[in-house]
Amino acid sequence: MAAYQCLTFLTDYGLEDGFVAACHGVAARISPDVRIIDITHLVPPGDVRRGAAVLAQTVPYLPPGVHVAVVDPGVGTRRRGIAVAAGERVFVGPDNGLLSWAVHEAAGDGRVRAYELTNEDLWLRPVSATFHGRDIFTPVAAHLLNGLDITKVGSPLRTEELVTLPTPMRRIRDDAVEGEVLTVDRFGNVQLSVPAADLELLGVRPGGSVLLSLGKRQLPVRFERTFGSVPPGELVAYADSAGCVALAVNSGDAAQRLNLPPGAHVRIAPAR
Amino acid sequence: MAAYQCLTFLTDYGLEDGFVAACHGVAARISPDVRIIDITHLVPPGDVRRGAAVLAQTVPYLPPGVHVAVVDPGVGTRRRGIAVAAGERVFVGPDNGLLSWAVHEAAGDGRVRAYELTNEDLWLRPVSATFHGRDIFTPVAAHLLNGLDITKVGSPLRTEELVTLPTPMRRIRDDAVEGEVLTVDRFGNVQLSVPAADLELLGVRPGGSVLLSLGKRQLPVRFERTFGSVPPGELVAYADSAGCVALAVNSGDAAQRLNLPPGAHVRIAPAR
Amino acid sequence: MAAYQCLTFLTDYGLEDGFVAACHGVAARISPDVRIIDITHLVPPGDVRRGAAVLAQTVPYLPPGVHVAVVDPGVGTRRRGIAVAAGERVFVGPDNGLLSWAVHEAAGDGRVRAYELTNEDLWLRPVSATFHGRDIFTPVAAHLLNGLDITKVGSPLRTEELVTLPTPMRRIRDDAVEGEVLTVDRFGNVQLSVPAADLELLGVRPGGSVLLSLGKRQLPVRFERTFGSVPPGELVAYADSAGCVALAVNSGDAAQRLNLPPGAHVRIAPAR
Repeated sequence: MAAYQCLTFLTDYGLEDGFVAACHGVAARISPDVRIIDITHLVPPGDVRRGAAVLAQTVPYLPPGVHVAVVDPGVGTRRRGIAVAAGERVFVGPDNGLLSWAVHEAAGDGRVRAYELTNEDLWLRPVSATFHGRDIFTPVAAHLLNGLDITKVGSPLRTEELVTLPTPMRRIRDDAVEGEVLTVDRFGNVQLSVPAADLELLGVRPGGSVLLSLGKRQLPVRFERTFGSVPPGELVAYADSAGCVALAVNSGDAAQRLNLPPGAHVRIAPAR
Repeated sequence: MAAYQCLTFLTDYGLEDGFVAACHGVAARISPDVRIIDITHLVPPGDVRRGAAVLAQTVPYLPPGVHVAVVDPGVGTRRRGIAVAAGERVFVGPDNGLLSWAVHEAAGDGRVRAYELTNEDLWLRPVSATFHGRDIFTPVAAHLLNGLDITKVGSPLRTEELVTLPTPMRRIRDDAVEGEVLTVDRFGNVQLSVPAADLELLGVRPGGSVLLSLGKRQLPVRFERTFGSVPPGELVAYADSAGCVALAVNSGDAAQRLNLPPGAHVRIAPAR
Repeated sequence: MAAYQCLTFLTDYGLEDGFVAACHGVAARISPDVRIIDITHLVPPGDVRRGAAVLAQTVPYLPPGVHVAVVDPGVGTRRRGIAVAAGERVFVGPDNGLLSWAVHEAAGDGRVRAYELTNEDLWLRPVSATFHGRDIFTPVAAHLLNGLDITKVGSPLRTEELVTLPTPMRRIRDDAVEGEVLTVDRFGNVQLSVPAADLELLGVRPGGSVLLSLGKRQLPVRFERTFGSVPPGELVAYADSAGCVALAVNSGDAAQRLNLPPGAHVRIAPAR
């Protein structure tokens, strides 16, 4: 059994209510010495895809732990609650795809073990119909952190039974890479589902240029190491801190400039 | 003397300044191993009632502790600073009603002991006129966490001397329940001052329907276990995670839809 | 060697992405028992001056520690990364002036020792071009917290080589004080670069009045101990919790009322 070193939370609960603190409190009552790391609680309400992307990109930098994630528009309906062990980590949350990208990333080539949360002895009583983060996911996670064997949380599931989000589109074709907008960060930087390594395969290097196709629009863009490599106000493509191709405007907001929401299709070719 | 396991904060300080960190720092200097749980720092500036509601609903899920709360438009004027012991908890903050609902909840049938903060030896020096959270409430709380007896913080007060917020209106009359909007959460869910148990007394059960009266407007609404029980965009009433009747729009914002601010009057009757 | 008791963060990363958690995770992997205090992550993107002001005013209330600050529009370009020891503290971040006011404050009359971060053995691999907070500053800080001698982080710099922000304007002239708007807090309170002690030198005491000059506008304003000393909606000057003269509107927003952005020039004279 792995020794988990932290409990982490990612939710769409926001920070203006007491929801996050209630989860922290429930965890601390069960596991008094727990180290808690909050990933974010500002996932837009119900945006499972955005939650999945942030979770998958952040978890690799966290200590081995139990990772609770709750973006859960189906709370209280028949969607399952699950715990999934992958690598040195366990993920706990609703079975709606939210965990799937992070599980895939954490598992690597290894085995994934999934369980439906059915052992009610671990839950808070009474269980509300709308706050499973507090009443089910957090207490189960805190018990796992205390050393409870994952087989005790409920019934085993075959991994094929788990809900997964579709993998973001990404392909190389006709000497160009195609992908979609994965996320937009606080700075308005637009992260694409295209690994920077794919662009390199096409011969693009920092200091070079690419041709960006957004629907019918075509834009020549410099490819640099960082947004600071171009003058303020100028658009730039670069390999971001997650290893993806990203678009930024130095000291500006690329998502706004390009009007590129998550899911939008993008094509990038080496400039001729 | 209870062994307090955590120090918690609820304020209207916001997160863009260093105010919260200054309080955390002052606490850590006095009580280096303190576990801090932030309830929220996004109470709307000066909104004592909102702060009181979030505090009272969150504290039951926290470990026994010292709970600092600061929504304090009267800071630096003659309003008192107080520490109030109730059950396994101590509350520290301004005597403006902010603590009153949480104290009532924590006390249960037990005794409440209140003290005016007059022992200046516990305070930071110099004391500013506008930041008692940092200079008075936090250091007093940290000393209590270290084991200081509460009788040492200042002069005893009779509980009748404490400022209390009026209890939110709630009554059963003519086969209907009446109450007011207690709070609106991040999702736009509207929490009423009506215990779900009161609706049950009138025979309303999940799967049933109610007639909602908002001033002259009347709306038939389904009563369900959770917002996910109705189609997206539809209004629903349910028992929320605090045991109150609440109104939600599945994947939407009920407060906006119904134009229901905190304090608004609501009447709910079983549908005929 | 000082024993540092905490690791603190101040950034413009925001709270909606996983950037802050990635830094917390990297720190916890290197220094598992680290106490982390977040000063703020809501510095407006790229606003080095605002970050410098919040850092300098908050750090005096924190335990001796290693203080990471990242507001870094030049990340990935040739700007240096630095660690600066001052008093019982070490500051780690970009050499763009962000640290300068806090270093000055922490040093007092003592010596400042500065180092360029060149020891790549301490960094995360691979180092991204755009997220030095995660890949360089945090791991260096966590090693310092573990007891690494600061001379090991890289090459010594002469303190004259460090980038510093200009000291905010402040002077006493013709029986008046002049200064500029330093910061505006969540409540809209306007903090000036004028120490309250300077006003006292001119004979202004709580309960008195001053004449405020903003460009061509002149306003008589009461000088009080706190904003609660004037009726709601009224403008007031007072000595704020950092010892600076500040302007507030009781239960209102002075920055908005006066249209005073950071950097604006203000003159205050005793009222005749």
